[in-house]
Amino acid sequence: MSHSGRLTVDAARLRGDLETLGKIGRAPGAGITRTSFSRSDMQAREWYRASCRAASLELRVDAVGNMFAGAGSDAGVAAVWSGSHIDTVPDGGAFDGAVGAVAALECVRRITEEGISLSRPVRAVVFADEEGNYSHLFGSSALTRGFDEEQLRGMVGRDGDHLVDALAAGGWDVAAFGDTRVDPESVYAFVELHIEQGPRLEAMATQIGVVTSIVGLGGAVVEFYGRADHAGTTPMTGRRDPLLAAADLIAAMPAIAASVSDVAVATCGRVDISPGSANVVPSLARLTLDYRDPDAARLGTLGARLEEKAAQAGSRHGVRYAWVPDVPIAPVELNPRIRSAIDRHADSLGLSTLAMPSGAGHDSQNMATIAPTGMIFVPSKSGRSHCPDEDTDWTDVTNGANVLLNTLIELATSGIS
Amino acid sequence: MSHSGRLTVDAARLRGDLETLGKIGRAPGAGITRTSFSRSDMQAREWYRASCRAASLELRVDAVGNMFAGAGSDAGVAAVWSGSHIDTVPDGGAFDGAVGAVAALECVRRITEEGISLSRPVRAVVFADEEGNYSHLFGSSALTRGFDEEQLRGMVGRDGDHLVDALAAGGWDVAAFGDTRVDPESVYAFVELHIEQGPRLEAMATQIGVVTSIVGLGGAVVEFYGRADHAGTTPMTGRRDPLLAAADLIAAMPAIAASVSDVAVATCGRVDISPGSANVVPSLARLTLDYRDPDAARLGTLGARLEEKAAQAGSRHGVRYAWVPDVPIAPVELNPRIRSAIDRHADSLGLSTLAMPSGAGHDSQNMATIAPTGMIFVPSKSGRSHCPDEDTDWTDVTNGANVLLNTLIELATSGIS
Repeated sequence: MSHSGRLTVDAARLRGDLETLGKIGRAPGAGITRTSFSRSDMQAREWYRASCRAASLELRVDAVGNMFAGAGSDAGVAAVWSGSHIDTVPDGGAFDGAVGAVAALECVRRITEEGISLSRPVRAVVFADEEGNYSHLFGSSALTRGFDEEQLRGMVGRDGDHLVDALAAGGWDVAAFGDTRVDPESVYAFVELHIEQGPRLEAMATQIGVVTSIVGLGGAVVEFYGRADHAGTTPMTGRRDPLLAAADLIAAMPAIAASVSDVAVATCGRVDISPGSANVVPSLARLTLDYRDPDAARLGTLGARLEEKAAQAGSRHGVRYAWVPDVPIAPVELNPRIRSAIDRHADSLGLSTLAMPSGAGHDSQNMATIAPTGMIFVPSKSGRSHCPDEDTDWTDVTNGANVLLNTLIELATSGIS
Repeated sequence: MSHSGRLTVDAARLRGDLETLGKIGRAPGAGITRTSFSRSDMQAREWYRASCRAASLELRVDAVGNMFAGAGSDAGVAAVWSGSHIDTVPDGGAFDGAVGAVAALECVRRITEEGISLSRPVRAVVFADEEGNYSHLFGSSALTRGFDEEQLRGMVGRDGDHLVDALAAGGWDVAAFGDTRVDPESVYAFVELHIEQGPRLEAMATQIGVVTSIVGLGGAVVEFYGRADHAGTTPMTGRRDPLLAAADLIAAMPAIAASVSDVAVATCGRVDISPGSANVVPSLARLTLDYRDPDAARLGTLGARLEEKAAQAGSRHGVRYAWVPDVPIAPVELNPRIRSAIDRHADSLGLSTLAMPSGAGHDSQNMATIAPTGMIFVPSKSGRSHCPDEDTDWTDVTNGANVLLNTLIELATSGIS
């Protein structure tokens, strides 16, 4: 029990676990590459499995790689879930996802060790492919809205490999892929601990972020189709160079985001051009866009303006374009009662709080569509994330885990009040 | 003998050879991918070797894959060379390089068949890696200025493979790579037949282009170094996105080329960004640039203005840049006496001619630094090249080969007059 008479996590064990996990997929002198279903991700999953075994927790893995750890059975009683993900972006950091996934496991361990009597079970969850090597927020999407077999078979990873092959290689049963949705009645509530991935908590010297809403997320693949020509003999005025249209669109993205709101963002994180030879004018330029805004209407406007610019740029350079949108993920408001429980427990633990929206997408976004959901943020140094410099003080990690533990216990005993 | 009493090539054999070669590396319904030292290129080399054997011509291959076919020995007498290349760009056409390489072989065959008495031998040459999978105009550069072992070991192909590994796999002797330069005294003259790869001959309804000069070629790899950040949580104003700088440079290239001359061209044919994830602001954007102008001073200005723009773009977006130039290939004037011989033989064959510069780089550019050199162009339909649509009428191919044959015989008998 802590100084405030409240249960606390084992800070040394939590840190040790995060440090061990942080070595899996780490390149010397660089970041962590533990993209979903890669060799490193499979190693991390093995480590998680062994951690559960060591704590005598049952581990269940569903048909698309979501993992659920807990003591006892779910039968008949809606469970309180908590968790996050252990996959990373390429060359990412040790805190994004890992903090929430490992803290949830630690909370279940502490509840079990203390023999706390609960009205409903608590489950630690690891969502598959949160970072979208195959599909953004993949695991929680499979749990909440599901995918049919055709959709699953169509998913191709960053390296051109097929999701179904990666799953089959990992020992999963292809035939069961279509059957991953959970009964919403079986989930009482969901709480996720995560690093902020932005600079606000640090700037305000605040220990705990109580997340009010999660940003809406749009994405699209834009293709410009031009004409391959000899780079030496084709006059500049006789070309149909799709890369010039792509450059116009990329260059306009900051102004388009600013035209929608102060908080809108638009990013091009991938560019692929064909044939990709130094002495050939490209025939194809393909851009992968990510754009976000916390307001649903503004998110729609942002997508529409980006597409409009793509059309203009194509027309200006005499190239056709195709705009292939992802299914947009709507912004969500998080549950006010869970927010107030988080706030109250932080306060009892002597921690300062800030109510704030999340600029990053999270599995909580999907979970909020089937159960009352809350999110706890802890500070990110300099706001850096999705890079090797991602960092959070161990004290902040512990603070967040303690708030999570007490919130979960309240939800699993007295419930949402 | 032709209607004009001049020797002519075997048009059916030449076409048959080009059609056979055009099947090697051809993807169904698409272009030819016969990049140097690829499996397809090795097959094409085998076909060339078999063609020489069938014609009882000796074939010599040097340490970097240049091939020389002819009857008799070079000993003591400077030879007349003719040839081009049989490698292609990815998804390229059946005429670029192949026409000149196969026509040269056909000329040597016809001279041998006719038993024409020559003062100096004629050699058909196939230059390795003209298209620069490893290094632009590689084979002729190795013959004329040579590479040291360190330079050769540093050459990396489009797919990330090393040239020395490709050569070793092809059975070449790594130890002999440094020793490829030819004695300039051993080459009396060089003549290359090639498709125009531009629209001018077709537009002027002219059958033969007499090349006056070859464009100068500059190239550079530009890298912009920014900072990887989360695409959702990093405000637009807090980013250092190298792709925005790259887009500024790409978008400015047409205006920069136009500022130098009407004929200057500037192309970005490759873009590589890291880490290449949809939800991560890139940390690195790498552009491969190709720029050309027939005037040496203007070529220098063009390169300088492109670099200046790269610096401006980097500074505007808060990212560092590096400009790594290729060794520029200077524009060259072709030999006036060989030009006049080409013109005269075309006229005797009843063919119309146009004196014109070449906008594409060719091995002739390197050969001109060690021997009197000429080039013959034949029309390209719609000016298309470096793409599957590349096409030239068989009549035009035959016309060009006939001009080449008579020019070579003149050079090998009476010499440069």
